[in-house]
Amino acid sequence: MTKPKEQGLKTEIIVGKVKTVFSTAEPDEVCIQYEDRVTAGNGKKELWIEDKGKVCCEISKILFKELEKAGIKTHYISMPTHRAMWCKKVDIVPLEVIVRNLAAGSICRQTTIPKGKLFASPLVEFHLKDDSKDDPLLTPDRMKLMGYEPETFIETVLSINHILIKLFFSIGFDLVDFKVEFGYDKDGNLLLADEISPDSMRLWKEGTSQSYDKDLFRNGDGDIISAYKNILTKLQGIV
Amino acid sequence: MTKPKEQGLKTEIIVGKVKTVFSTAEPDEVCIQYEDRVTAGNGKKELWIEDKGKVCCEISKILFKELEKAGIKTHYISMPTHRAMWCKKVDIVPLEVIVRNLAAGSICRQTTIPKGKLFASPLVEFHLKDDSKDDPLLTPDRMKLMGYEPETFIETVLSINHILIKLFFSIGFDLVDFKVEFGYDKDGNLLLADEISPDSMRLWKEGTSQSYDKDLFRNGDGDIISAYKNILTKLQGIV
Repeated sequence: MTKPKEQGLKTEIIVGKVKTVFSTAEPDEVCIQYEDRVTAGNGKKELWIEDKGKVCCEISKILFKELEKAGIKTHYISMPTHRAMWCKKVDIVPLEVIVRNLAAGSICRQTTIPKGKLFASPLVEFHLKDDSKDDPLLTPDRMKLMGYEPETFIETVLSINHILIKLFFSIGFDLVDFKVEFGYDKDGNLLLADEISPDSMRLWKEGTSQSYDKDLFRNGDGDIISAYKNILTKLQGIV
Repeated sequence: MTKPKEQGLKTEIIVGKVKTVFSTAEPDEVCIQYEDRVTAGNGKKELWIEDKGKVCCEISKILFKELEKAGIKTHYISMPTHRAMWCKKVDIVPLEVIVRNLAAGSICRQTTIPKGKLFASPLVEFHLKDDSKDDPLLTPDRMKLMGYEPETFIETVLSINHILIKLFFSIGFDLVDFKVEFGYDKDGNLLLADEISPDSMRLWKEGTSQSYDKDLFRNGDGDIISAYKNILTKLQGIV
């Protein structure tokens, strides 16, 4: 793991499955380095893939900037190096917020809803972010009992969904679902945080169920780096 | 497995983990035989325990009759033999409906809610009844997408909870939680079905967290048959 001192990086403060968070010379900023790893099944399956960190970082940068332009508050500040972004330091809310437009993945395994079913209204779901518990699904009641209000997040994630659906449609993809995380900055603002890339969403070639996302790795049926680079190139062509 | 022909039993129509359902001479009635088995973890752990079927059948009978007296519609008809009950034939709704008064079990493993937390309002939760999927938790949205309305069940299970809390309090136990199932009879009436016994509920000695239920088997720290017989004897003393 490189730790370029000259860029003001100090200490690794969080070593995640595919990203490392460093403190910086600025107390309210962190540097998030995207690693060349891909994992699935809560880390049970993993692989080193050259350029993967860089491509996910570039895609995240584009998406954070597009969302900021549309009025969404995010943690993104800048991306001065090839696979690390400077971000506002936040206290992460330990929830994974998922928005689903079409049924795929866990919702199909855990219900009788068939893969590919279009939800008349986008479905917003919450999971507890806790690897030791396998990130369990939460009901709204369970969330409230833990002190979280679904309403804190729903309007923002539906706005994000609306923006991303249009963005990906314009480059030929259907946004099936995505996962985001939020955090509070030092002034108590709720910011979109973590990463937004094909690692945390499902993208199907428009009108098909052909994956251009981490399902290629989960299912072992394709070359994720080519798919991710395809997404990146197309996004770079429109922003 | 005994199959007493003289009692009008015909064919095993469902062989469950701890009960067997037989058709009878009456097309709209079934016989549900309680077996001397106990299982946990979706059948991963199991044991043969003498008298267990009989004791659970007796407790279920008492509880179904008490609930009927209080106006709850159930599938129970009669219990002519020592470990089998005659019931109305129903189409089971493939949902497990759980009511929680105190936190215990899966809700503690899947959230940060501590064991023993008293819920200000009883919590009603739903799981899909599907062993192959490990009976996954459902959100209200997931239920609705599968064609079920939580409201169909909530008022009834809260009434059942109210009745059972008082009944168990009167014999010195706190009703922590319980699971029930429902089914529709030939006339489209929704009936409380399946079983209600310490196999499908948590009972703690009043004011403590001492289990008198299947947790004794799940956790391997006690003699379930003595605990179940204790419950049965006390119930027989008050009804």
